[in-house]
Amino acid sequence: MERIPILKMGKFLLVTIQVDLYDRLALALEEDLVMMVHKTGAKGVLIDISALSIVDSFMGKIIGNIAAMSSILDAETVVVGMQPAVAITLIELGLPLSGVYTALNVERGMALLEARMPEETGNDRDNDDE
Amino acid sequence: MERIPILKMGKFLLVTIQVDLYDRLALALEEDLVMMVHKTGAKGVLIDISALSIVDSFMGKIIGNIAAMSSILDAETVVVGMQPAVAITLIELGLPLSGVYTALNVERGMALLEARMPEETGNDRDNDDE
Repeated sequence: MERIPILKMGKFLLVTIQVDLYDRLALALEEDLVMMVHKTGAKGVLIDISALSIVDSFMGKIIGNIAAMSSILDAETVVVGMQPAVAITLIELGLPLSGVYTALNVERGMALLEARMPEETGNDRDNDDE
Repeated sequence: MERIPILKMGKFLLVTIQVDLYDRLALALEEDLVMMVHKTGAKGVLIDISALSIVDSFMGKIIGNIAAMSSILDAETVVVGMQPAVAITLIELGLPLSGVYTALNVERGMALLEARMPEETGNDRDNDDE
């Protein structure tokens, strides 16, 4: 079964969605992502959907689910690279992606997450007192 | 026609290959990547192939091409996330990916590129003398 790779970039995770998500792939992604957030202690998840030119209610729901799951695990979700047509479709479908931040591209999404990170409060995990 | 998204992350570009590259898609990727390197002045290209469980001589050739093109444009290429089976196949195919750096994951690939970047020699392009 194919899986969507989840890349760890510093404190954040990056997922690039390039293929249509069908049920099992979407479930696998949700599961993998939650496991990765847990394992890495990531504070943010970036979902790049710049490759998607269409989106349906199922995809919208999956993105909402991922955001909800991440936020329970104390990681914020930013959807980046949304094409204008996708934004139109999501609103017309009545899926305003509430609870999900959006940004124009990965760089801005990262900046958004950085800005929202609380100032280092002494709980950084790799602090080895070097 | 579908296209593989190219994400700009700071000074580097990131390409996540999740689908089998067929001729036209591979050509489009080469073209897009060269354009992006030119447009953004990126100093490095990370190609994540962690989603690929098999690789054939065509894929190997495309990766080699991308590396060669990037290097002409003064950007280094790092292939990251290669699965063990893929490494075995590449060697058995006689494609040692010469001229291409490899790293275990995106983070290490970025660290490799950072380490190889010459010390800022005053040629950063966004230097607007603000």
